[in-house]
Amino acid sequence: MAATAEQIRATIDAYVAAFTNGDKDGYLSLFAPDGTVEDPVGSEVCRGPAEIAGFWDGVRNMTPTIELRLVGTPRVAGGGAAFAMQALPELGDAKMVVDIIDVMAFDDEGRITSLRAYWDMAEMRPYDG
Amino acid sequence: MAATAEQIRATIDAYVAAFTNGDKDGYLSLFAPDGTVEDPVGSEVCRGPAEIAGFWDGVRNMTPTIELRLVGTPRVAGGGAAFAMQALPELGDAKMVVDIIDVMAFDDEGRITSLRAYWDMAEMRPYDG
Repeated sequence: MAATAEQIRATIDAYVAAFTNGDKDGYLSLFAPDGTVEDPVGSEVCRGPAEIAGFWDGVRNMTPTIELRLVGTPRVAGGGAAFAMQALPELGDAKMVVDIIDVMAFDDEGRITSLRAYWDMAEMRPYDG
Repeated sequence: MAATAEQIRATIDAYVAAFTNGDKDGYLSLFAPDGTVEDPVGSEVCRGPAEIAGFWDGVRNMTPTIELRLVGTPRVAGGGAAFAMQALPELGDAKMVVDIIDVMAFDDEGRITSLRAYWDMAEMRPYDG
């Protein structure tokens, strides 16, 4: 049986919270065993916990603090979801912002089987509140 | 060579305009010959101009007038794009609204090879301006 919309929304909320709180173990626990991350879309696909942990470490090496903020509500359809958000990384002394849309697929337990993040580094800009 | 971000953004603008203006031929011209539409995600996939025309007619039979409004800017990455929008159909005398995220892939000429629309009919509500 496919994940319910409630399960999917709970996973997305937990994903935003784990990422924002720097909770690596919590973040990794949200993925199915063979889950994939392609972030941004067009970059190399990370598959499974070791590669996804490597992706996490790579992001955190660039910016130890990065807040995610949902924009609007996730759209849930067909066992998947897409949602808009802003990522607010701190790069040195500068707080930056970039607009992202994440597209996810889920297994029957609501774990992430696929995450594809649409954003463009060229669109990153200083955050002005 | 992959479509440029400019080509992709132009196709998305033309897609929103054609859909809003009821321009079926303009809409169909935006797709690659074997392009697909899965709208909403989880429904049957329409492939090629005849099936996509059938999808168009099905939507228009339900609601002859339907405006699309982009929300924020499209996120372009890896030859694809995702963008948030609102669809505002008129159902009888009622103007309704539903939040959608479209995810598209494009061929080298900027034509749509795949359109997947994340939205849920259960989220549709009266539009209050």
